[in-house]
Amino acid sequence: MDKVVSLSKRRGFVYPGSEIYGGLANAWDFGPLGVELLNNLKQAWWKKFVIERTDMVGLDAAILMNPETWVASGHVGSFADPLMDCKKCKSRDRADKLVEKWQFDNQSDLAPANWAGEKTPPRDMLDFINEKNIACPYCGALDWTLPKAFNLMFKTKQGVVEGEGKDIYLRPETAQGIFVNFKNVLTTSRKKVPFGIAQIGKAFRNEITPGNFVFRTREFEQMEIEFFCKPGTDLEWHELWKNFAMDWYKGLNVNPDNLRLRDHDASELSHYSNATSDIEYRYPFGWGELCGIASRTDYDLKQHMEHSGKDLQYFDEVTKEKFVPFVIEPSLGVQRSALVFLCDAYEEQTLEDGDTRVVLHLHNQLAPVKIAVLPLQKKLGDEAQKVFTLLVKELGLNIDFDMVGSIGKRYRRHDEAGTPYCVTFDFDSREDESVTIRDRDTMDQIRMKIAELPAYFREKFKY
Amino acid sequence: MDKVVSLSKRRGFVYPGSEIYGGLANAWDFGPLGVELLNNLKQAWWKKFVIERTDMVGLDAAILMNPETWVASGHVGSFADPLMDCKKCKSRDRADKLVEKWQFDNQSDLAPANWAGEKTPPRDMLDFINEKNIACPYCGALDWTLPKAFNLMFKTKQGVVEGEGKDIYLRPETAQGIFVNFKNVLTTSRKKVPFGIAQIGKAFRNEITPGNFVFRTREFEQMEIEFFCKPGTDLEWHELWKNFAMDWYKGLNVNPDNLRLRDHDASELSHYSNATSDIEYRYPFGWGELCGIASRTDYDLKQHMEHSGKDLQYFDEVTKEKFVPFVIEPSLGVQRSALVFLCDAYEEQTLEDGDTRVVLHLHNQLAPVKIAVLPLQKKLGDEAQKVFTLLVKELGLNIDFDMVGSIGKRYRRHDEAGTPYCVTFDFDSREDESVTIRDRDTMDQIRMKIAELPAYFREKFKY
Repeated sequence: MDKVVSLSKRRGFVYPGSEIYGGLANAWDFGPLGVELLNNLKQAWWKKFVIERTDMVGLDAAILMNPETWVASGHVGSFADPLMDCKKCKSRDRADKLVEKWQFDNQSDLAPANWAGEKTPPRDMLDFINEKNIACPYCGALDWTLPKAFNLMFKTKQGVVEGEGKDIYLRPETAQGIFVNFKNVLTTSRKKVPFGIAQIGKAFRNEITPGNFVFRTREFEQMEIEFFCKPGTDLEWHELWKNFAMDWYKGLNVNPDNLRLRDHDASELSHYSNATSDIEYRYPFGWGELCGIASRTDYDLKQHMEHSGKDLQYFDEVTKEKFVPFVIEPSLGVQRSALVFLCDAYEEQTLEDGDTRVVLHLHNQLAPVKIAVLPLQKKLGDEAQKVFTLLVKELGLNIDFDMVGSIGKRYRRHDEAGTPYCVTFDFDSREDESVTIRDRDTMDQIRMKIAELPAYFREKFKY
Repeated sequence: MDKVVSLSKRRGFVYPGSEIYGGLANAWDFGPLGVELLNNLKQAWWKKFVIERTDMVGLDAAILMNPETWVASGHVGSFADPLMDCKKCKSRDRADKLVEKWQFDNQSDLAPANWAGEKTPPRDMLDFINEKNIACPYCGALDWTLPKAFNLMFKTKQGVVEGEGKDIYLRPETAQGIFVNFKNVLTTSRKKVPFGIAQIGKAFRNEITPGNFVFRTREFEQMEIEFFCKPGTDLEWHELWKNFAMDWYKGLNVNPDNLRLRDHDASELSHYSNATSDIEYRYPFGWGELCGIASRTDYDLKQHMEHSGKDLQYFDEVTKEKFVPFVIEPSLGVQRSALVFLCDAYEEQTLEDGDTRVVLHLHNQLAPVKIAVLPLQKKLGDEAQKVFTLLVKELGLNIDFDMVGSIGKRYRRHDEAGTPYCVTFDFDSREDESVTIRDRDTMDQIRMKIAELPAYFREKFKY
């Protein structure tokens, strides 16, 4: 992981947020290469999950919502971590995470279910912790306060009367923006059930233990779908979306050996879910969640019907049935996916001449820079620039023009950045109107007419 | 405006936010067509302002930043509206806006400068208001409290100790995320001054009088550039970016008669700016700001140098000079631009047969749906679907497949949605492997081989 973090900082993928002011707990800023990677992966998701499917439409709901939304969704009541303090050293910990670690260390499945949810009373948590001698990881004492639920939503005030503003929240998930718009989208898009609504957007959770680079951050971006289907067909659709999400990652060159599907067992399921599966990835720090696919029954729509008083039922014109659709929710994290693509693409190679090269084997769709146009020497700059302009205009892709340093150094730089192709304009290029294309992964070189480049690359970057 | 709002709701461009709960003051959600419009315009901006220029790179900084950032930028101290209450009816108003309205009504340039900024003392504001008899617009009384500065930043707490969290802010602009990353980007991107950093992202302002549909909202998205140049060249670059931004709007088919440039005069300029220009648009409610291009001197970087203690100077390797770059900031609003594109594209046409059609003449790059594939009758659905799949795969664009209603109704529906081309698959299509392409604006129809469609449309949607 250190190598990926270091490369990210060095090459401008990811910087610590507000770094000149000492940062802000686990906030990260995406640099010139990072923002292109994020844009590319979001576009890849949108293309496969929305554009190419006739049963999907998009949405972009506001981050700030009427607070009643979060009462209905259950977030005001129970979206909380059980926190407790060590009375000796005053450090604060998540009771559920300490139990999870104890379970892992002791290979035990003894712990009660749903420690993070509302199921386990604080007294039972504390009893279990004391019984198993789960001590403070900082000072070793076994002297905990009773765990207390701490709500994870960031709160703010809207309205301009000091002390009188309305309490509102930064959304902790994009999902509810979809549910409250279900009827609006249904009416205006003229879609029929089964169909889904997709959204990409920021969400915020005021968690205690974010960490592991961009794996878990308080501010993050989700790519979520709520897929509405007829009750009884939900588990079939759950199966479909599980595979669809898995195929998406594999299709973007994530090594299948580093991916696995894990179905939640009964004790782990949320009370409203009849099936939930995680796609897990083998991070440098071990297997961890990458993406969740939850079958949420009709829980959310029913909650919103009850709290809003609106009828969110669907009327099937063919069968003349009226029902509340069941929902499948494939939920992916943008930054977490970026981390997976970076980790999976990273390689240090020892070359034949004994040299080491760092190379990012990013999928062509994800590569921040698609092609680097390199004049062999500075005096060829003007002519090489014309090749750059041609490619940008014809392809509309992010293409780099790089004149600084020896050609070997420039190749290495672009290997590290994950640039799939370098196009070198040399002295022969003036004569033969051709350039050399060097492949990042194989380091093979081919010669091609400049006029043929757009069609060649258009094919290479089709996704 | 009512017509655009109504169309937006009816066709799924824009819905009131959290509508089933009675909304949230002036929050808006973008529906299936709206989100495509936003994505298209953001991509258009990114392409012209970042990708096609060798002197630009991108960035995506976090919304939550170290709060010291906002002390340095001046937002904690003076990013405020002067608010006052009517003692009679208790309504609250912006002193500066009431003065602005008085000025307009009386065609006067009498008012003191910078009413919204920190220049005019509250006492002077009140004296002016009383002297000119500027009464409460709700009850007509002239009995105001002293205007009081109300900070426009949304505040929240980070950290999980109740009552002890750290005060942080939702960023009121994306700009500062760029300034604090200036050195990081400079080092990792290897760019030389002059160059710029571009960012698209959400910002939040807790304003009192948002309104006019999505023209001014508390949550909004900015497309901002900070362009760093050598002192002395700043006014030239200001000129360039003014024209560049103007050309961008015109290039996306905004009627030039509805656009104008307005340079701020000396009294209107912020204290750190040596030149600022607005691009204004003729909205249905009158001329209003669309985009600002500010020359901000070295103010921001110097503020951050002072507050962070870091050296943010630039060293010019050729001239061996060290200096703090001057900055030009072209700043565009995403939702406001969308509003302009919608207003400008909207037309009600009376046809030869006396019928009325509503048509959105959106630029091909902006159109949410690029092509609608329409089987003339349902029984041609399967074959028409193949045309849909071919086009999606080959073009990667948002293409609709629509079987519902008469062909005439479907044309009208897509006119309203701004879909530039309808492709109709009819009974002859089976024989001649051709389809009819209907143009949204001219309503002309041509016949074309299915195999030729991808190349034809690829050309049409080049941007």
